[in-house]
Amino acid sequence: MAGSIDRLLEKRTRLLGPNVPIFYRDPVHLIKGEGVWLWDADGRKYLDCYNNVPHVGHCNPRVLEAIYQQASMLNTHTRYLHEGMLDYIERLTATMHSGLTTAIMTCTGSEANDIALRMAEAVTGRRGIIATDATYHGNSTLVSQLSRSNAPAGGFGLQDYFRHVVAPDSYRQSDPDGLLFADAVTATIAELQKSPHGFAALIVCPFFLNEGFPSQTPGWLKPAAQVVRKAGGMLICDEVQSGFGRVGDHFWAYEKQQVQPDIVVLGKPMANGHPVGAVVSSLDSISAFRKSYRYFNTFGGNPVSCAAATAVLDELKDQQLMVNAQRVGTYALERLRVLQKKHDCIGDIRGSGLVFGAEMVNDRTSKQPAIELTDDVVNAMRHKGILLSKLGRHKNTLKIRPPMPFSTENASLLFDTLDEVLSEL
Amino acid sequence: MAGSIDRLLEKRTRLLGPNVPIFYRDPVHLIKGEGVWLWDADGRKYLDCYNNVPHVGHCNPRVLEAIYQQASMLNTHTRYLHEGMLDYIERLTATMHSGLTTAIMTCTGSEANDIALRMAEAVTGRRGIIATDATYHGNSTLVSQLSRSNAPAGGFGLQDYFRHVVAPDSYRQSDPDGLLFADAVTATIAELQKSPHGFAALIVCPFFLNEGFPSQTPGWLKPAAQVVRKAGGMLICDEVQSGFGRVGDHFWAYEKQQVQPDIVVLGKPMANGHPVGAVVSSLDSISAFRKSYRYFNTFGGNPVSCAAATAVLDELKDQQLMVNAQRVGTYALERLRVLQKKHDCIGDIRGSGLVFGAEMVNDRTSKQPAIELTDDVVNAMRHKGILLSKLGRHKNTLKIRPPMPFSTENASLLFDTLDEVLSEL
Repeated sequence: MAGSIDRLLEKRTRLLGPNVPIFYRDPVHLIKGEGVWLWDADGRKYLDCYNNVPHVGHCNPRVLEAIYQQASMLNTHTRYLHEGMLDYIERLTATMHSGLTTAIMTCTGSEANDIALRMAEAVTGRRGIIATDATYHGNSTLVSQLSRSNAPAGGFGLQDYFRHVVAPDSYRQSDPDGLLFADAVTATIAELQKSPHGFAALIVCPFFLNEGFPSQTPGWLKPAAQVVRKAGGMLICDEVQSGFGRVGDHFWAYEKQQVQPDIVVLGKPMANGHPVGAVVSSLDSISAFRKSYRYFNTFGGNPVSCAAATAVLDELKDQQLMVNAQRVGTYALERLRVLQKKHDCIGDIRGSGLVFGAEMVNDRTSKQPAIELTDDVVNAMRHKGILLSKLGRHKNTLKIRPPMPFSTENASLLFDTLDEVLSEL
Repeated sequence: MAGSIDRLLEKRTRLLGPNVPIFYRDPVHLIKGEGVWLWDADGRKYLDCYNNVPHVGHCNPRVLEAIYQQASMLNTHTRYLHEGMLDYIERLTATMHSGLTTAIMTCTGSEANDIALRMAEAVTGRRGIIATDATYHGNSTLVSQLSRSNAPAGGFGLQDYFRHVVAPDSYRQSDPDGLLFADAVTATIAELQKSPHGFAALIVCPFFLNEGFPSQTPGWLKPAAQVVRKAGGMLICDEVQSGFGRVGDHFWAYEKQQVQPDIVVLGKPMANGHPVGAVVSSLDSISAFRKSYRYFNTFGGNPVSCAAATAVLDELKDQQLMVNAQRVGTYALERLRVLQKKHDCIGDIRGSGLVFGAEMVNDRTSKQPAIELTDDVVNAMRHKGILLSKLGRHKNTLKIRPPMPFSTENASLLFDTLDEVLSEL
């Protein structure tokens, strides 16, 4: 099928333009998925250790059925009355702390973060936003400014409102109780307070996933949350990647951090791949936003989206997938510990629930990131039928974040193969 | 079911917050749709004369089947190879002028417009954007500034880059060949050229739908397009509402205007309610954007979205829905002409294909907008089982924009009922 791959790559260049991200040196042409498995056009089977969007498994029958049933009945915008969105928001907010009662439904996490930042502006009357320097929160004009790598120029001059603090890195910079991070936030708040923009919000993924999910003690984010509150700012937790039981011990990663965010942002896994996102906050904050903006989202909160999102909650509960995430995550860390003893290139191992990985280094003393080696590992694994990726500031951390039904047997295959690959490289 | 309505309204206020738009003084609680028909929880049937999102009909079986089949097979992001997005973009761009070859797929028209404005910035190196003063192009922080009514304050100070020209109004301001409009654009370009921002783009719906779809001769927009080109700016046509055969005589409203836009933006009806949007432009313009931004959209262009969007193109073709739109639209204008002779409150009638309506006035000489009367008509129609709305600068134009399978029999029922309502009010 090499001819078919070449033809698809030619069509991509012509129809999509340049600089469109694609995985692997030999890209994969997928045609089928089921649970934690994917198949390519040649019938080859892959273990999916990467995709968090199909949260309850590729082509999950319950989600599929929910979409089909509701799409057969009705799919409209929300200017009519319908139970779907209301029942879903009631169930969703019941999983969160008591201050989070009200929601705006969107189609993507980007749309949700785009609202969250304006909500902080509407509530505080200020515009200065702080994020980490190795994060990603989406692709709109406004939120793309949160990534230092994604919007270096242009973007209608919005970079002025954004400040970046150094992302936590438990492997290289000891900060056991989060005080160093809180100090950096304090200094950046002071900087913004001296600017005409003032300080509106700190936005973080409470598991710092794109940053390489540093190891943190429970409550690590509390000191930072306290300085944010003290300065009259809002804490926005972007749970797009870390939420819905992914981290195993809690349904939301902010609970692990023992903080109560003012705004929670949701996306990717929310409806197993159906385009759904949301902003959850207090009635007061949502009201402040809705007084500034006559916001309406044509597709947001439609009955089909809500049926899909509801099926995800049902499946998480009935299949006890958070418990599974914790059990398999614990097993994964044990296996990683064994591999670390055997392979010197594994500098650090980290993770919680079904997000885990290994940071690859050229040498454990200097901790120099093994960037090329990591890339080689990712590509070698692909050729052995295991799909994963890499992330972090240096892109030298293996990013393993499979669908939630991932089992210990699946993890066993993953680590047996990783052992092989590391032995061969 | 009044109890049920009250309960749903209470839940909306609590779970969604204030200022969430809802239709009708007595909101409708919908539970089922099929073709051009909708049913409420009491089993009452309504003729849908409003919804353009279910373009090929509510719960269209072909779209439903396409979604079900693809969602059963695979749904992933586009960092793997898949035919779905490529084949769809090839078919989509084949319907457009030869300069539009390349696309970025998104989940909403808002996301697409948000890209289009940054694309104009990336291509021209300038930021000044011109829109009409009675338009709407979406809800992101950037594009909400295009609406004068939706983002009056806040929005991270972006209003600086936007200028508004008076929207065309064929009923009150004669401008038969678009020269007045072009003059207004010229003056606004000059204003922007004096500012630090310069002039990047004019963005319009080529049917000026939110503005009240003024009657225009073919090629009316050409003079404005020429002054935009002359100033080195880009013409962005937002076809979110006007595209996909809606206007009957052409597949795209820009063809009616005899202009060749640099960027076309798509959304709402594209996949019959599945959240899909797109930006279409030249390879050069897309490249310029993609060099400025490492843009990636997790859900955009996924196989299920593309299967749904492809089914819409198939259904439009096989059911000859554009021909239907032209035939029924011609019949609708005839019926409106008869009603206008009978009812003095109908000041003007306008439309093309399956977008048509009547502008309501208190008196034909002063042309004073009959705002309350229009609202009364919309609500009286709802009680007689006909769903429509109102739009335009004064919200005094009946907005009739049904699903594309709308027949002359459906139109006949609509106008018989409108005649009754206008006689009774």
